[in-house]
Amino acid sequence: MEAQRKLLNSTELCVDEALCGLVRSASGLCLLRGLRVVVRSDLKHLNGRVGLVSGGGSGHEPAHAGYIGTGMLSAAVAGGVFASPPPTSILAAVLHLHNAGASGVLLIVKNYTGDRLNFGLAAEQARNRGVSVAMVIVADDCAFERPGKAGRRGLCGTVFVHKLAGALAEEGCPLDKIVAKVTEVLKGIGTLGVSLSPCSVPGCLPSFQLPPGDMELGLGIHGEPGIQRSKVACADQVVNTMIDHMTNPSSQSHLLLNSGDSVVLCVNNLGALSCLEMAVVTRAALSTLEARGVLVARVMSGSFMTSLEMAGVSLSLMRVDPEVLRLFDAKTSAPAWPNLSSVCVSARQYTVEPPVLRTWAQEGNAHSEGPLSPVMRSALQRISSALLDRREELDALDRASGDGDCGNTHAQAARAIQEWLCIHVVPGCPGQLLSVLAGLVQEKMGGSSGGIYSLFLTAAAGHLTKGLSHAGAWANALHAGTQAMMRYGGAEPGDRTMLDALCPAVDELLKVKAAPSGGEMAVLQAAVKAAELGAESTRDLTARAGRASYIAAERVTLPDPGAVAVAAILRAVLESLEE
Amino acid sequence: MEAQRKLLNSTELCVDEALCGLVRSASGLCLLRGLRVVVRSDLKHLNGRVGLVSGGGSGHEPAHAGYIGTGMLSAAVAGGVFASPPPTSILAAVLHLHNAGASGVLLIVKNYTGDRLNFGLAAEQARNRGVSVAMVIVADDCAFERPGKAGRRGLCGTVFVHKLAGALAEEGCPLDKIVAKVTEVLKGIGTLGVSLSPCSVPGCLPSFQLPPGDMELGLGIHGEPGIQRSKVACADQVVNTMIDHMTNPSSQSHLLLNSGDSVVLCVNNLGALSCLEMAVVTRAALSTLEARGVLVARVMSGSFMTSLEMAGVSLSLMRVDPEVLRLFDAKTSAPAWPNLSSVCVSARQYTVEPPVLRTWAQEGNAHSEGPLSPVMRSALQRISSALLDRREELDALDRASGDGDCGNTHAQAARAIQEWLCIHVVPGCPGQLLSVLAGLVQEKMGGSSGGIYSLFLTAAAGHLTKGLSHAGAWANALHAGTQAMMRYGGAEPGDRTMLDALCPAVDELLKVKAAPSGGEMAVLQAAVKAAELGAESTRDLTARAGRASYIAAERVTLPDPGAVAVAAILRAVLESLEE
Repeated sequence: MEAQRKLLNSTELCVDEALCGLVRSASGLCLLRGLRVVVRSDLKHLNGRVGLVSGGGSGHEPAHAGYIGTGMLSAAVAGGVFASPPPTSILAAVLHLHNAGASGVLLIVKNYTGDRLNFGLAAEQARNRGVSVAMVIVADDCAFERPGKAGRRGLCGTVFVHKLAGALAEEGCPLDKIVAKVTEVLKGIGTLGVSLSPCSVPGCLPSFQLPPGDMELGLGIHGEPGIQRSKVACADQVVNTMIDHMTNPSSQSHLLLNSGDSVVLCVNNLGALSCLEMAVVTRAALSTLEARGVLVARVMSGSFMTSLEMAGVSLSLMRVDPEVLRLFDAKTSAPAWPNLSSVCVSARQYTVEPPVLRTWAQEGNAHSEGPLSPVMRSALQRISSALLDRREELDALDRASGDGDCGNTHAQAARAIQEWLCIHVVPGCPGQLLSVLAGLVQEKMGGSSGGIYSLFLTAAAGHLTKGLSHAGAWANALHAGTQAMMRYGGAEPGDRTMLDALCPAVDELLKVKAAPSGGEMAVLQAAVKAAELGAESTRDLTARAGRASYIAAERVTLPDPGAVAVAAILRAVLESLEE
Repeated sequence: MEAQRKLLNSTELCVDEALCGLVRSASGLCLLRGLRVVVRSDLKHLNGRVGLVSGGGSGHEPAHAGYIGTGMLSAAVAGGVFASPPPTSILAAVLHLHNAGASGVLLIVKNYTGDRLNFGLAAEQARNRGVSVAMVIVADDCAFERPGKAGRRGLCGTVFVHKLAGALAEEGCPLDKIVAKVTEVLKGIGTLGVSLSPCSVPGCLPSFQLPPGDMELGLGIHGEPGIQRSKVACADQVVNTMIDHMTNPSSQSHLLLNSGDSVVLCVNNLGALSCLEMAVVTRAALSTLEARGVLVARVMSGSFMTSLEMAGVSLSLMRVDPEVLRLFDAKTSAPAWPNLSSVCVSARQYTVEPPVLRTWAQEGNAHSEGPLSPVMRSALQRISSALLDRREELDALDRASGDGDCGNTHAQAARAIQEWLCIHVVPGCPGQLLSVLAGLVQEKMGGSSGGIYSLFLTAAAGHLTKGLSHAGAWANALHAGTQAMMRYGGAEPGDRTMLDALCPAVDELLKVKAAPSGGEMAVLQAAVKAAELGAESTRDLTARAGRASYIAAERVTLPDPGAVAVAAILRAVLESLEE
């Protein structure tokens, strides 16, 4: 078995290169040269305030350096992937803040033995050099009902601590007060993770094996396996199980959560869960909490404390009161902090009524007849008959170049028109009729043809309203329809589509505006002729749009069925008017 | 072959539930009831301004609804996963903005036939209802050297368009001016993707097969395969190939990019690439562009236009001038827009000098001898000899409960001390000596013991400075060291660790402060006795910390080697002083 290939340069360089990529992307961040220590660029701002340092193993990006900025951390120290950083680097971070004028330094440390010892050593070393240092340990894991001596692990709830301590430090709160406040808030923070996949440290095999379709509950962020394995259940059920487990009073590591409590919810992508799934899980978490009477004051959903490419999610909850919420809402420039709003999630009305849209069917019932109604009814009947008559011919043409359903599609439209004519009056306004037809073909014709005809008819309809119905207006309307078809569909004459019949016909029709009175029928005759010639000319064309464009050119020697259908429709109109 | 299990409730509900999750998380967003249309909550703000609508298939979260907010989109319309939204929904979005008082509506559409037709149809329908509508088509894909009739695909560059058009609309810019500006900027936008995995639509098989270790260049965001397959290369090389391909003038879809140009870079996670890899790719993209003389004005790195759970990344570039940059930097409340700074990336100095830290070796050279130096030298020699003498015994004890190297680890420390004594003077200040020893054992002793001893010595050292060296100060120092060990290491007396020898000894030592003058040796004798009794008592204890805690209790019947070593060290000190 080989280690998974990743998009890296080397396992040795990946941590330093990732830090460089992150720091270069955020102007508020700088690297201490030669160390894996990221510090705020504007350290003079720190003067007299408490500096905040966090850190730990890499592989949890954007943690921890992504949380550096005004109102959050002052520095972050990174170790190798999933490895605690050396005390020397931590000490360098602390002294850097001290030298910049920090009134004291708070170390925010996740509860792992290595981190506790290394941050602890650096803290003692800094203290010996006269720095006022304190440490808070974050232990928010709710997985183990009886945690061992090492205690609960530090997980994504750490990000809450970064935020609250950062807001306090920004306000000028002294070190002991920050420690006291954070210590109190920590009692109300809990986290639990679930994953559909393991992760693998660069250059290594996956940390555990998980058969496809299984999920692991209660895992850490270093690829440690969890406490329970099962088949992947549906999102609502998984989230319900997670919140049950997190708040189960019989577990020593549970989060006390009662109906009526307010919380901030963090839905954290452990690395490779799709954003679609993340949003579904977020919805499920909100519903589950609200069903228990818990008020969700804020929610953040995204990648905050990852575990390399683990396809999982963790839920963190923090019980809040108005003061904690005020600190949570305080502004920060940290690059990994999301663009959150400060409105209570649970209370908010999040749907609004859509505008009333009359359907094509409703439109059709609302119109009244006019002098043109019988003429248009007759033309529609003729068109429908013509398309039904030529169904087999069109299907045959389409079999040579497409999927063989062109005749059938047009026949569906024809039958839909016939049925509609049976029970509706034809509106006297041509624009209204074309709008109804647009809705009718969009719904009943199907396929891309339905969309394209609908587009044509809709664009044309706009030019036949407000009493306009003379031949020039019809020519303008058909021209507008054709233009819309080209603009949105992306095809042009010569691409072996219905445009090869339609465009020459419209060019002829536009001449009606300069034609002498009474010359309209001659123009229409010329237009139909042009359409038929255009359709015939498609024999020699290579398809460049539509489905036929995937067929080798030499295999298509018959005319394009779409163009033939357009010519047939125009001839039907002509014959109807000639009668 | 079975479809991949995902964390969803059902393939039918996932899009609606994801929209609900997103909208509920962002108070600036609302859903049009019954439709997959998300709109700004504060639409009265729109009054007289141009409304912006985008959208397309789902599966690209946070696109498009995540870009709704002040200074970005007014509405987004979602289709099914990878499917264009229906024209009715698009029309509802447009009319909703129109009814809210928008002076016009701009549709921002990615270049796919389905989207073009459906947005086009909605645009024509809206126009027929008196709405001033325009459309811009984004076609930023640089994959195909000779794109077909359908043209270049719309990819992540669309997010740039959302931002710029949004900033213009916010400023009150009229519809035609926004269209003109965006159309001009679009010429300078290009995107290319690469992936190490395919993705799969919920309920379906993966869109293509990619053997482990292979990557696919130039793919779209709907699981379409790309233009070239190869083995996964290193990140720098992959990025170089991508930028070469994107800017190759012999390709019809290349982005014109010359030395001296300024760009905004977007490094977009296609779904499941780890944040570690994302940061490495970001660094590589910055280096590659700068090596070509391109100035990177801004960089955004994250998940902006995903393709479900595809483990890949796309690079988007946008040529910018100061005006475009001003629009890019404008504020927005859109939840998916990152916390960016407006400082030029390429020009910035991003490293600073770390504070100067003297190593333990340098510290050791800087001290001068004092009256206590010979006594302390003698004690250190005695300790070293004792530990070397008992190496085998300690190893044997450790073999019964741990990894069998306790004697070896202590012997390494002993030899390091002996070597150091050969070439250094022993400082007269005990605190300085303990600090040097702390550095020495941290570097030379190794293992967790090195860290724990170092922590003990460092915390103790702080109590033996400024001339303090009397017996009471020593007792206080050892007490502080023990407390630090407990605080940071997390163990307590009774956990079968070195604390079981150390704590009783320190309790005895503290009595020296109340002892009559001259009674110091008696106190030390009692302390050594207490340490030896404590070490012996660990036979009956169950390990609850350290490596021995993983061994079943009944298998350990010998004393803890760490505790035995501590007692041996204390006895060596006593013997040295007695001489």
